Amino acid sequence: MKSIAIIGLGLIGGSIAKAVKKNSDIKVIGWNRDVSVAKTALEQGSIDSIWNKESMLEADIAVISTPPYATVSFLEENARLFKKGMVVTDVCGVKEYIIVECERICNENDLFFIGGHPMAGKEKGGYFNTDATLFVGASYIITPTETTSQKATDILKELINILKAGTITVTTPEFHDKVIAFTSQLPHVLAGAYVKSPLCTKRKGFSAGSFMDVSRVATADERLWTELFMLNSENLVTEINTLINNLSAYRDAIIKGDNSRLSTIIKEGREIKECDNLQF
Amino acid sequence: MKSIAIIGLGLIGGSIAKAVKKNSDIKVIGWNRDVSVAKTALEQGSIDSIWNKESMLEADIAVISTPPYATVSFLEENARLFKKGMVVTDVCGVKEYIIVECERICNENDLFFIGGHPMAGKEKGGYFNTDATLFVGASYIITPTETTSQKATDILKELINILKAGTITVTTPEFHDKVIAFTSQLPHVLAGAYVKSPLCTKRKGFSAGSFMDVSRVATADERLWTELFMLNSENLVTEINTLINNLSAYRDAIIKGDNSRLSTIIKEGREIKECDNLQF
Repeated sequence: MKSIAIIGLGLIGGSIAKAVKKNSDIKVIGWNRDVSVAKTALEQGSIDSIWNKESMLEADIAVISTPPYATVSFLEENARLFKKGMVVTDVCGVKEYIIVECERICNENDLFFIGGHPMAGKEKGGYFNTDATLFVGASYIITPTETTSQKATDILKELINILKAGTITVTTPEFHDKVIAFTSQLPHVLAGAYVKSPLCTKRKGFSAGSFMDVSRVATADERLWTELFMLNSENLVTEINTLINNLSAYRDAIIKGDNSRLSTIIKEGREIKECDNLQF
Repeated sequence: MKSIAIIGLGLIGGSIAKAVKKNSDIKVIGWNRDVSVAKTALEQGSIDSIWNKESMLEADIAVISTPPYATVSFLEENARLFKKGMVVTDVCGVKEYIIVECERICNENDLFFIGGHPMAGKEKGGYFNTDATLFVGASYIITPTETTSQKATDILKELINILKAGTITVTTPEFHDKVIAFTSQLPHVLAGAYVKSPLCTKRKGFSAGSFMDVSRVATADERLWTELFMLNSENLVTEINTLINNLSAYRDAIIKGDNSRLSTIIKEGREIKECDNLQF
């Protein structure tokens, strides 16, 4: 791989740019909706050049690093400007919607699409928070389908290795969306729901690690997460309902004063967590 | 202060012992239900001597570092062996129950009680996990009442400074229990309820920081936490119900496909969290 185009220089796209520049000699071409961010990235050496849409985009792979709807609409409008035969990938947290739409557009434009989702992030987005080491050791999920070309898979894997991710997880778009509703979307719903207790503003001096951990991602951006939640609504509603049922079991045991039942359900949670010794 | 007695050498008691030894010349006397733990602590220099209940316990302050019921029953059985005039404190995560019971017993035995709750912990307890720096920078809550002597408050504050805690938070037992239901008990309920999703065992390669944060304290010991939840049942049930209502608002907006409503409630959570820039 000699060149990579990164569309969108926010937390994920900007961090990919920085990691590629840090770990390889690959040429990085950047584009950002707000061109001032691209100019900053260029000045800081995070990218080698800015694509201005006045010429064809030429690179071995284009990484569209924007939210789901923006990813699809960017490709709708600009795929004709991508050099034929290029590999295209995305970084979205939902995959069923993205794969259907992006495969269609890329097929129509002689481009090779493969879906991807790096399992790394921060509680605040934007180029300002980018970090060349964001993906180090993390899992990077890819969702090749029956029609995905080997070339696309190979080039994306090459990029993932350059990012120093720890694992490549290969799965289907359907299974991705089901599990991600639990591992990522539910904690984001939870953090927001949690901090809405009227007691949150009275917590000064009354908290330690567990408050911080549960509330950390409540700072999530509502534009991005509204899209992600709505595009995975069925799976996420299932997970919210499961959580509400499980919370209700604790509440009901407490209301009844049933010590034995409460102890049993706390123990069950402990045992699940103790058997789960995976890092990612 | 020249000497301190620590009853119970688990995570909190053992960490207090280590911090006192590390940061002062105060003599540390230890007692533990399982004497082998006290012997290990003695060998490692975390305490200077073991109290064997065959002599009166003499120290400037006794810190009972056991769960709530054990704290009360230990005092019931052994307060007569404490030197008259000693200050006694506890480290329990509930205060209304503790203050009523411990003030009564201490009054009967000419001891000066003051309630305390260091806001520090780990996801696993026990002497094996003790750490001399556990309290550094943390908040240490104290709950003096109308009948608490100045001597008790002064000596406990002296100890808290030796532990290098960051803040001393003075409050009532009632307010403590109300806020702690939200900041500490609810995250522990949540972590256990969260990991019970059937998808938890399928998460390999699909998770990052937010899964880790929400699930961390699911390893909580069921004996301790059953006591803590039951002794604060009314406040905790209120918090669980508030959380369920807030979670339901996200779910209902998602089911209705109401993008604007979903965006608004995510934004509300973000704004609360962004205004909350306290460390503890």
